[in-house]
Amino acid sequence: MYAGLREELFEFLRIPSVSAKSEHDADTRRAAEWVLAALRRSGFTTSLIETPGHPVVLGEWRGAGPSAPTVLVYGHYDVQPPEPLHLWSSPPFEPELRDGRIYARGAADNKGQLFVHLKVLEGLLSGGGRLPVNVVVLAEGEEEISSPHLLPVVTEWKDRLAADALIISDSSMFAPGLPSILLSLRGLVYFELRVTGTGRDVHSGIYGGAVPNAATALARMLATLHDDGGRVALPGFYDSVVEWEDEVLDRLRALPFDDAALLAETGASSLVGEDGYTSLERLWLRPTCDVSGLTSGYQGEGAKTVIPALATAKVSFRLVPDQDPVEVGRQFRAHIRAVTPPGVRVEVIDLQGGRPWRANPGGPFFEAARRALGAVFGVEPVLTGEGASIPIVADLAQVLGAEAVLVGLALPGANMHAPDEWFPEEHIRKGIETFTRFYEEIPQGPPPRVGPSPG
Amino acid sequence: MYAGLREELFEFLRIPSVSAKSEHDADTRRAAEWVLAALRRSGFTTSLIETPGHPVVLGEWRGAGPSAPTVLVYGHYDVQPPEPLHLWSSPPFEPELRDGRIYARGAADNKGQLFVHLKVLEGLLSGGGRLPVNVVVLAEGEEEISSPHLLPVVTEWKDRLAADALIISDSSMFAPGLPSILLSLRGLVYFELRVTGTGRDVHSGIYGGAVPNAATALARMLATLHDDGGRVALPGFYDSVVEWEDEVLDRLRALPFDDAALLAETGASSLVGEDGYTSLERLWLRPTCDVSGLTSGYQGEGAKTVIPALATAKVSFRLVPDQDPVEVGRQFRAHIRAVTPPGVRVEVIDLQGGRPWRANPGGPFFEAARRALGAVFGVEPVLTGEGASIPIVADLAQVLGAEAVLVGLALPGANMHAPDEWFPEEHIRKGIETFTRFYEEIPQGPPPRVGPSPG
Repeated sequence: MYAGLREELFEFLRIPSVSAKSEHDADTRRAAEWVLAALRRSGFTTSLIETPGHPVVLGEWRGAGPSAPTVLVYGHYDVQPPEPLHLWSSPPFEPELRDGRIYARGAADNKGQLFVHLKVLEGLLSGGGRLPVNVVVLAEGEEEISSPHLLPVVTEWKDRLAADALIISDSSMFAPGLPSILLSLRGLVYFELRVTGTGRDVHSGIYGGAVPNAATALARMLATLHDDGGRVALPGFYDSVVEWEDEVLDRLRALPFDDAALLAETGASSLVGEDGYTSLERLWLRPTCDVSGLTSGYQGEGAKTVIPALATAKVSFRLVPDQDPVEVGRQFRAHIRAVTPPGVRVEVIDLQGGRPWRANPGGPFFEAARRALGAVFGVEPVLTGEGASIPIVADLAQVLGAEAVLVGLALPGANMHAPDEWFPEEHIRKGIETFTRFYEEIPQGPPPRVGPSPG
Repeated sequence: MYAGLREELFEFLRIPSVSAKSEHDADTRRAAEWVLAALRRSGFTTSLIETPGHPVVLGEWRGAGPSAPTVLVYGHYDVQPPEPLHLWSSPPFEPELRDGRIYARGAADNKGQLFVHLKVLEGLLSGGGRLPVNVVVLAEGEEEISSPHLLPVVTEWKDRLAADALIISDSSMFAPGLPSILLSLRGLVYFELRVTGTGRDVHSGIYGGAVPNAATALARMLATLHDDGGRVALPGFYDSVVEWEDEVLDRLRALPFDDAALLAETGASSLVGEDGYTSLERLWLRPTCDVSGLTSGYQGEGAKTVIPALATAKVSFRLVPDQDPVEVGRQFRAHIRAVTPPGVRVEVIDLQGGRPWRANPGGPFFEAARRALGAVFGVEPVLTGEGASIPIVADLAQVLGAEAVLVGLALPGANMHAPDEWFPEEHIRKGIETFTRFYEEIPQGPPPRVGPSPG
């Protein structure tokens, strides 16, 4: 890696653009301006879109003309808080190269990966270069605080942002030397269930046996959420789960995945889940239901002989394509109504939701990324899923009408959101080569059709 | 009520013998000495038995001779803490007579009722009076802190304390004007259930679907504790539950009990419980299982997407004659082992236990009490149960080899353990008349056989 290139990235990484902390508001804006300046130098028309929070950076290169496809590159210039500081081997905002790794807050998430895209576009477009596709760069400063203002901006600017492809590099490769393209993200619906029995906590001796017990009732309701085979038992829950093509499943099953490593990572003594699926399928392609919290009655040491008036649970579902959070919410409420035991009242509170997302394997941009990764890394990229949820991806793809392609360049164990975050120095160069090649691999001509075929 | 009698009781009530508070240790001892002096005045041989806590008062009158039956009267001279003080209409240790009620901490629980017995015995024995039965009075000072030292004392002194009848007045009548004799007390076993899945809380997106969820597992286990008819589902749980005689059940069912009042008292919107039984049977004669607390994972506001490593529940069973807490503990552990879902480890911790107790309707002392109450109150006493547990009753009855007879003289709503505790002044007189009559009603002659008949 050229020393000049590295020094340029280090300059970006030195800006402590911690979006969560108002004392860093000026730094966060400085990072936005850094991106803006880089885009201008490459020949982009730029806008700094103000929001009630941190600004959105917009860069547009429309040189391919209105009939050519448009690629939108999304990234973010904000970073997680660096705390706890004492666990860092070098200061989080003083980037350092050690053993081929660039250590800094934001090195992987997302400045290093956004930097790759900026350098690709600089290489291709600066000094009057041209591309057969139009390119829009959208960089937000609130990704680490759940993007509260991105969707309103995107919706307002949606004519300007309309794109055929949405390219995001904000995740990791499957393994060192093994590049990957994301197949899907799980969605989420999260509820609080509040069960009320008696009007106040009452004595379990004096009243036990004749009055409803909220904690017992809650447990009985939660026990109906799965069947004995580990499947979620809401009627209709699996109706819109997509069946992946055999080729996709075969490739997934061929991945070198180690259940023992999963046990070690989580400290579980054995793995469990939906019958008939491998761990990777359970984590990536299958929906789940998990109880994240229980609260009721006496929680201190020893015994208190009480019947709790109230029992609550945090219950969430991870959704897979094409489940709809609103529809699953309806199924959950209907199921809860059906299994509510006599004597208790139940309230279901919506806490969070986001749609699942799936890639379009075989699509022109997906295939362009696949070919580019294969050429640069010398190995066919693997297809991976992601069990966690990034609701903005599905939302952006939908509003923009774009095919999203997610190609992460960090490596497993990159310590995103943790001390000693790092990014492999070599992946700066390989990333630049990959995405330069990506633009070459996009089929020429008018934009390919996106979305379901008619009829 | 004679003014002198009232003043004497007020003197006893003025002593703040709060056993739970070490700053009242001297007061508590003063109350013990007050009882001791009263017994001595009546002609009792007295002992103050020291314990690591508050002393036990022992009074013995053996004038009926070794072949006559022995009646042991149990009571306690300690009281509950009076707090919160601001909710008292008059100071807790300045007894006051208002509208026929004596207000003071301990008026009902238990000084007022113990006083009744002391005055009965004074009336019958002082100045050389005689009885056809021997009488032992046992008054402890740690009832309100779970009697930690009583059973060791009783066991050590059991030859001196051996009795044919154990008489306790420490509860309430069923209703004003309607005296009652206790038929049974429920026992208790109380456990903490600790379910461990993963080694630490893990992300529900990244790991959800492939690792065990401790909270879900706990809920599924708790849901197996009852069947759909509200019966406890431990195998063998009902095997040693006694079937009460039809006459007892008929009398219980004839009691004027109001489900609407139970709803109002507990704030429940409807009553539930074991199919086929009335509320009173469910509360008094049937065993139960209740969950008293649930703790797991995230309990704060909003959503946290976590799979909890640990989930705990407080689970207790109220037992009825002749269930055995140790045997039910075995059944619970065996059941939990049988229903533990794959992937989790379960620990069952014993927290508390006590045996149920039942009276001996038709027994000589039970019948003597019944006749005495009927004569004094002018109405046949009702038989009642008690859903709560007083483990010391079963233990005392067993160690002493005695038939226990529990006759409470307080009234419902007496605010035992609460501010404005009270005892009806009229029941001092009626109580003295009742128990004076009781001694007359005991059949003459050698002690009746106690316990199951041979063969």
